[in-house]
Amino acid sequence: MQTTLLKISCPDQVGLLARITNFIAQWGGNLTEVHQFTDAQDAWFFARMEIQTQTLRCRLDELRNAFAPIGMELQAEWSLRPAEARPKVVLMVSQLGHCLADLLWRWRSGELAFEIPCVIANHDTLRPLVERENIPFHCIPVSRENREEAFEQIEMLWREASADLVVLARYMQILPADICNRWSSRVLNIHHSFLPSFVGANPYQRAHQRGVKLIGATCHYATPALDEGPIIEQEVVRVEHFHSEQDLLRLGRDCERLALARGLRYHLAERVLVRGNRTTVFRD
Amino acid sequence: MQTTLLKISCPDQVGLLARITNFIAQWGGNLTEVHQFTDAQDAWFFARMEIQTQTLRCRLDELRNAFAPIGMELQAEWSLRPAEARPKVVLMVSQLGHCLADLLWRWRSGELAFEIPCVIANHDTLRPLVERENIPFHCIPVSRENREEAFEQIEMLWREASADLVVLARYMQILPADICNRWSSRVLNIHHSFLPSFVGANPYQRAHQRGVKLIGATCHYATPALDEGPIIEQEVVRVEHFHSEQDLLRLGRDCERLALARGLRYHLAERVLVRGNRTTVFRD
Amino acid sequence: MQTTLLKISCPDQVGLLARITNFIAQWGGNLTEVHQFTDAQDAWFFARMEIQTQTLRCRLDELRNAFAPIGMELQAEWSLRPAEARPKVVLMVSQLGHCLADLLWRWRSGELAFEIPCVIANHDTLRPLVERENIPFHCIPVSRENREEAFEQIEMLWREASADLVVLARYMQILPADICNRWSSRVLNIHHSFLPSFVGANPYQRAHQRGVKLIGATCHYATPALDEGPIIEQEVVRVEHFHSEQDLLRLGRDCERLALARGLRYHLAERVLVRGNRTTVFRD
Amino acid sequence: MQTTLLKISCPDQVGLLARITNFIAQWGGNLTEVHQFTDAQDAWFFARMEIQTQTLRCRLDELRNAFAPIGMELQAEWSLRPAEARPKVVLMVSQLGHCLADLLWRWRSGELAFEIPCVIANHDTLRPLVERENIPFHCIPVSRENREEAFEQIEMLWREASADLVVLARYMQILPADICNRWSSRVLNIHHSFLPSFVGANPYQRAHQRGVKLIGATCHYATPALDEGPIIEQEVVRVEHFHSEQDLLRLGRDCERLALARGLRYHLAERVLVRGNRTTVFRD
Repeated sequence: MQTTLLKISCPDQVGLLARITNFIAQWGGNLTEVHQFTDAQDAWFFARMEIQTQTLRCRLDELRNAFAPIGMELQAEWSLRPAEARPKVVLMVSQLGHCLADLLWRWRSGELAFEIPCVIANHDTLRPLVERENIPFHCIPVSRENREEAFEQIEMLWREASADLVVLARYMQILPADICNRWSSRVLNIHHSFLPSFVGANPYQRAHQRGVKLIGATCHYATPALDEGPIIEQEVVRVEHFHSEQDLLRLGRDCERLALARGLRYHLAERVLVRGNRTTVFRD
Repeated sequence: MQTTLLKISCPDQVGLLARITNFIAQWGGNLTEVHQFTDAQDAWFFARMEIQTQTLRCRLDELRNAFAPIGMELQAEWSLRPAEARPKVVLMVSQLGHCLADLLWRWRSGELAFEIPCVIANHDTLRPLVERENIPFHCIPVSRENREEAFEQIEMLWREASADLVVLARYMQILPADICNRWSSRVLNIHHSFLPSFVGANPYQRAHQRGVKLIGATCHYATPALDEGPIIEQEVVRVEHFHSEQDLLRLGRDCERLALARGLRYHLAERVLVRGNRTTVFRD
Repeated sequence: MQTTLLKISCPDQVGLLARITNFIAQWGGNLTEVHQFTDAQDAWFFARMEIQTQTLRCRLDELRNAFAPIGMELQAEWSLRPAEARPKVVLMVSQLGHCLADLLWRWRSGELAFEIPCVIANHDTLRPLVERENIPFHCIPVSRENREEAFEQIEMLWREASADLVVLARYMQILPADICNRWSSRVLNIHHSFLPSFVGANPYQRAHQRGVKLIGATCHYATPALDEGPIIEQEVVRVEHFHSEQDLLRLGRDCERLALARGLRYHLAERVLVRGNRTTVFRD
Repeated sequence: MQTTLLKISCPDQVGLLARITNFIAQWGGNLTEVHQFTDAQDAWFFARMEIQTQTLRCRLDELRNAFAPIGMELQAEWSLRPAEARPKVVLMVSQLGHCLADLLWRWRSGELAFEIPCVIANHDTLRPLVERENIPFHCIPVSRENREEAFEQIEMLWREASADLVVLARYMQILPADICNRWSSRVLNIHHSFLPSFVGANPYQRAHQRGVKLIGATCHYATPALDEGPIIEQEVVRVEHFHSEQDLLRLGRDCERLALARGLRYHLAERVLVRGNRTTVFRD
């Protein structure tokens, strides 16, 4: 069964859901999953709908054309795409392989549906893990001196790969602000703390020093302000006095893997709608 | 702001959501919260909608009359009621007061909106806790001999109280099957295990003997088959080898309180839709 | 069965546990629970032991006298007390009653063993809840002008009550630094965020604005630096985009209640050992 | 820093901990981690101690000889071994690779310290995943007809590999009872439900039908009674009405991976002590 995904966000008004569902019904579309949320504080409408593709009486481009004037009138951000399209996702890594290995397994097993045009790293450590999957691996070291060119080169690789999304899978470099802006809501990061606790470097060390009883990980979109982008998913795990900083690193890895995999899953299935610094996530 | 709640469950068909939202839009109703779920396996449609009452161009009884033919055509179970109505909830208890005390606090503070026409117990232990809140307390002991009359008397009290719901807040008696049937989906029970583990008596003792690493509690509707009714909410807590059976009782109390309070909350706000032995719970 | 509690913390050295357990064995003491932790980073030893009182061949004061020279030699902080002693705990509240009601229930039911000499508040709101339990209630309003005298009066009440511990059960005033210092490790606070996130005022509002997917509560000892004291217990709950700030308050209440009740439980049973800004908590 | 592990379980008596810690102190051993638990109900003593190897004034075999008479007198089950020894673990799999891939990653990265002499499967599906790690892979199909010989062959492979432990990483065959008995507490299984719920086949399907709100996974030792062996670790995840059986499988995989990895970790570090059908797990 093929599915067409409609994602829409716009100012709220009376009859909005009726109008959209009418439009779909009018083209014969059978809805198999509908999520809708109205932010009352902001008077903003968010929705995601799954439409059975074969019930539609037109091709996708025709449906898009038919919806365009409505979208414009509603001042909506919207998209219509086949659920079967496999987004192209570039993975960025440094030396820690746990998130990478986890994503590779979910990709290879088909649990997550996406393509990996290439993996980019600032160290060569993880090359074997990547190349044995027949995925191109680019090592682009980043230093204080070459930072600007390095990121030019990196962004060029993203473009050449026609990347729909970039995932920073424990990539230990801070992206330049202009790249964050150009790729807004298209760069996913995993931060190794439950934000807003421990923004920045060495969160596990600081968590250990602070003596917290819970540590966590946060999957969010990268923005120019470090670790302050819209949060998609967070995971925590209980820790105790006998856990050393090394133990926190170990326990945290399982949080990071899970939070990143879930955040990526929601993004790939068009389940994340961003407005300002908050996300609406229609989880599955 | 007043709100009207529509709850509906019926066989799925194309255009169903459009039809219902159109109906509401046609009467001027502004939707502030919409939840919809289609069970694909079963082709069944479930929805709950919050409508701003003052935007409606008719009274509630007129709206009900207008919707009746649609509901019949769709072979739907449906209800339309003001969110502000405070359901009448009879509480049933034995000797353990933790769930009762928790519900009384949530009731008194207004966190949960309902009325308590009376509390019924099979022991006199909790009378002071109830009467100091100016709630009538009925003690109806149940023994093997008087079981039948006792439950006749109990059911009569429910009727006299015009109970919309009965909550078994650690009431340690099994309800007669015919009462469960007559009050189907209107008797909420809290069972002190994460069902289907440890159905029946002494679940904590059996959990301790089995050496499980997690214990829990389950809020479900009572049915004639003991502890097998539709589950609304479950809570768990981690336990370790050093926890005695007494510790399990203690830790379990916090699970029971939470699972019951959440289950009751969802029921009161028309967020629970039952079909067969499964529930759709549009949580808030 | 009566129990004597030994709590000790000192610099680590070889044979320490042998030495202490020998001492107890020598006096006939049967150990029923032993917790020991060595902080390797710091070379510091922490232990808590439960001794069956009737197996001891001496009275508690004699045991204390016998241990004193060992304690001195080890440069230890230590205490020996009967588990049955019920510490005197003064509760401090403002207008929110959920933590107070929860503690009152656990106190009345005997789940937590302590005495409440009085409750002190800066508003009169919760007086009925307290007085119906026959507990003295003192209302001492605190304003910018009378702050100094108010806290003098409050501390005097603590002294008159021979308080072993003070619990800030959502008391919305900041204690003066000198009081925090004088009552170090004897003032328990519940903060309504998972620290170190959202230190200070209005954490739920800020959590909502930040769009976090988990909120929580932290039970910690009060220190002069606001919300920076040693953490004893933390609880979290998952939140979603559809949860308003009001929903966060509601969900957070259950976290606050639990974290405070657990933190208090550990403190009362001498299960918390503080060193610097970290706690060792031998949970039960 | 090298470490010697002492694990001991025996009937409780006064002075037991003193006696054992004295013994270690007498040989110069510095304790870096001590866990002790007395099961009061059963009067049974469990302990695990980490001793700094270089502080010991004798070799391990001498220490064992010196402890032997004490162990005999105490009627203890005990072991003394270097923490650095890497146990040999045979992995058993069928067609699902998520647990296998997870264990391989934790093994390769050094997070878990063990050797994998071989992987045995009843299908050939996972051969590539194993052989690219340069681990021998044996495919031994099991049918109703060849069951006896197949398991003879399998047990022979375990012996040839000098297996210290066997891990059933979603191996979909039931082991013969006599093998379970011979390898008691040396076969680790991961069951895809939170036991004792859904013993046996198709737990996710049955969980979906029952409409539970939490699913889970259980790591336990295999015994002749199916899914009834001593539980080491359990993990759960919340599910909702919109999760299909396929979604449960997906969400459950993350529970299975975690529960198995943690259970294995505890076993490898001698942190699990079994008595009857219960485990004492000194978690790290």
